[in-house]
Amino acid sequence: MLQSRLFTKTQKLPPKDAASASHKFLVQGGFVDMLMAGVYTYLPLGWRVINNISNIVREEMNNMGGQEMLMPAMQPKNIWEETGRWASLEEIMYQFKDQSGKEAGLAATHEEIIYDLVRRNIHSYKDLPFAIYQIQNKFRNEPRPRGGIMRGREFMMKDLYSFHLSQEDLDVYYNQVKEAYIRVYDRCGLKVKIAEASGGMFTQKHSHEFQLISEAGEDDIVYCEKCDWAQNEEIASKIEKCPVCGGKIRKGKSIEVGNIFQFGDKYAKDMNGYAMASDGQKKPILMASYGIGISRLVASIAEIYHDEKGIIWPESVAPFQVHLISLGRNEEAETIYQKLIKNNISTLYDDRDSSAGEKFADADLIGIPERVVISAKTKGKLEVKKRNGKETTLLTLEEFIKSR
Amino acid sequence: MLQSRLFTKTQKLPPKDAASASHKFLVQGGFVDMLMAGVYTYLPLGWRVINNISNIVREEMNNMGGQEMLMPAMQPKNIWEETGRWASLEEIMYQFKDQSGKEAGLAATHEEIIYDLVRRNIHSYKDLPFAIYQIQNKFRNEPRPRGGIMRGREFMMKDLYSFHLSQEDLDVYYNQVKEAYIRVYDRCGLKVKIAEASGGMFTQKHSHEFQLISEAGEDDIVYCEKCDWAQNEEIASKIEKCPVCGGKIRKGKSIEVGNIFQFGDKYAKDMNGYAMASDGQKKPILMASYGIGISRLVASIAEIYHDEKGIIWPESVAPFQVHLISLGRNEEAETIYQKLIKNNISTLYDDRDSSAGEKFADADLIGIPERVVISAKTKGKLEVKKRNGKETTLLTLEEFIKSR
Repeated sequence: MLQSRLFTKTQKLPPKDAASASHKFLVQGGFVDMLMAGVYTYLPLGWRVINNISNIVREEMNNMGGQEMLMPAMQPKNIWEETGRWASLEEIMYQFKDQSGKEAGLAATHEEIIYDLVRRNIHSYKDLPFAIYQIQNKFRNEPRPRGGIMRGREFMMKDLYSFHLSQEDLDVYYNQVKEAYIRVYDRCGLKVKIAEASGGMFTQKHSHEFQLISEAGEDDIVYCEKCDWAQNEEIASKIEKCPVCGGKIRKGKSIEVGNIFQFGDKYAKDMNGYAMASDGQKKPILMASYGIGISRLVASIAEIYHDEKGIIWPESVAPFQVHLISLGRNEEAETIYQKLIKNNISTLYDDRDSSAGEKFADADLIGIPERVVISAKTKGKLEVKKRNGKETTLLTLEEFIKSR
Repeated sequence: MLQSRLFTKTQKLPPKDAASASHKFLVQGGFVDMLMAGVYTYLPLGWRVINNISNIVREEMNNMGGQEMLMPAMQPKNIWEETGRWASLEEIMYQFKDQSGKEAGLAATHEEIIYDLVRRNIHSYKDLPFAIYQIQNKFRNEPRPRGGIMRGREFMMKDLYSFHLSQEDLDVYYNQVKEAYIRVYDRCGLKVKIAEASGGMFTQKHSHEFQLISEAGEDDIVYCEKCDWAQNEEIASKIEKCPVCGGKIRKGKSIEVGNIFQFGDKYAKDMNGYAMASDGQKKPILMASYGIGISRLVASIAEIYHDEKGIIWPESVAPFQVHLISLGRNEEAETIYQKLIKNNISTLYDDRDSSAGEKFADADLIGIPERVVISAKTKGKLEVKKRNGKETTLLTLEEFIKSR
């Protein structure tokens, strides 16, 4: 991609209300643009990061046997009334009447809709267990959207749902998804803690949150310094030392980057979802749901990976692998750009007629993992520098391609 | 994909209100599911077709220099008021108040939103021309949603927007997109007519529709039997012979599978979008927009490619390339399935414990281009049949893979 053509440009000043590094740099770097409070456009750079994260999530969900599909954002009132959530989610769910007076809502989540689809289609143990997921924008009327895309009113989410005929079967799959989630975060460069959560009306062992310790977070969790134990503060407020190893516990503000819930037979009872088991008995279809906030992950990664100059994207999610910068050497740089592309190295090529200082500042702000400079000084070679390093090395194009 | 695991199954009966082949077969075949009038879930099979079409569209838009991004569905009233469309689109646009009383609308289209983004970011000829696009669900309160996903209230669309400083530049790009659109339809197996359209408030030469002649369509167009000339009936009602070649004209109901508009300086004037030209003069930023209904394309393809038994997908958009059917030979078929996958041949493998009749009927309904049967009769070979052919041939696995 030619940087002279890239929509949009970087901005000199951060947004006025930016209190976190991710909010500041994602807006300044041209990754996202605010349309209204909590509602953002993913600009070409940000959309590339979203897609990279989505593809990691997709691979891990497919490996779990998840089938991808897409449910609508617009949803009828009557299905949500079956579980009482049309009323209980009133504050968070956008609900409106269409021009004919019919009431509809915008998807804040999809449990009711997927369960309706399942009860109409699944009638036998032969079709169970199975898992289905989607990646799409969801809508929540957050009273205080903040942190840029950290907590939005329209935000991108992956939601997986699994269906089972026995609690044992559900438990096994639930634990496998827990491990798949850790792989997702690992691949995005994030070390998260799995915190036991209250899960609203359910017992604590049936819900877990994936928490990233960060000052930019809004969640309070309690966790052990030595072992893996962690709990949401809501249920852990009276704990004074780690119940697993006896070690010292800490409290921290934290970012919730995912959550998983076991609903057991709640939906079967509320929405009448039963299937025939292999012994001929009618049994409830159990459900669990598993969410990852894709757009929040973008912000979380920027929160963990940045310095005072800008973002430092991990390779796995970076919008481009290489930032090629020409300092008055566009003819030479163009040839190198074409060769990098031919070698499947995704490259943002700064072909603009700007100063070296401006180009380097933009490169630091945008945060592509490797910077390659072509100038009179480099004499036909490539001056290579990692975004998170200080050393530069001079390499031939062939050496550079081999080094990757 | 194992067919025993596929969510959902085919249905014995078509939906009651299905008046068109595409509506009937897409629902019966398990491609889409109706949640409410005009609002559909894309089930795993349908989602695969959507993605195949989206990727064709994406390639052609990228080739046109289009940059992909994603704008929000939720939109503020004030920006739409600048052009007067908050009022004029009142009937078609979902408009509501959020819990704080603030008015918002759901995206029926994105001209106002993209133009707002452009006027805030583009200030110089150096940044023009450029083009940007997205693929996402749009919302229109159609009074009579019909034909399944042919005309929905929530539907998937690709919308490209281009920006220019001169009419000549806009004309050149507009004509290039016209050609790119023809390539998109060609690759989807569709021969469309380009009809001049009135374009609402604009002159006819500045808007074109891409029309697919079909009884399932709702548009009336007038077209020449001999040459390429076509016009929307709205503006062609008094024409009696072809104005280009003098040939006989026909009238026909037709499916509008795309449309392109030149807005000229309308948005520059309404929304104050100007940039500095190379001569230092302030000039209006001209806009054109270009839409393709992705979900309508799914229905259109099914409308053109079907017989009395089901759909016959063109290879380019088919949910899978091969439908592998085991008749009591699952061990043998499983080995072949694994080898097909290793050779990157996407395969739906019917491993179910069902009758041959049921499996063949499902294969015809789903419409995967090639059917491969493994049975006692095939003696280690593959019985291969095209969905749109009658002949079967016996091939070894190696011969089959080579034949593709």
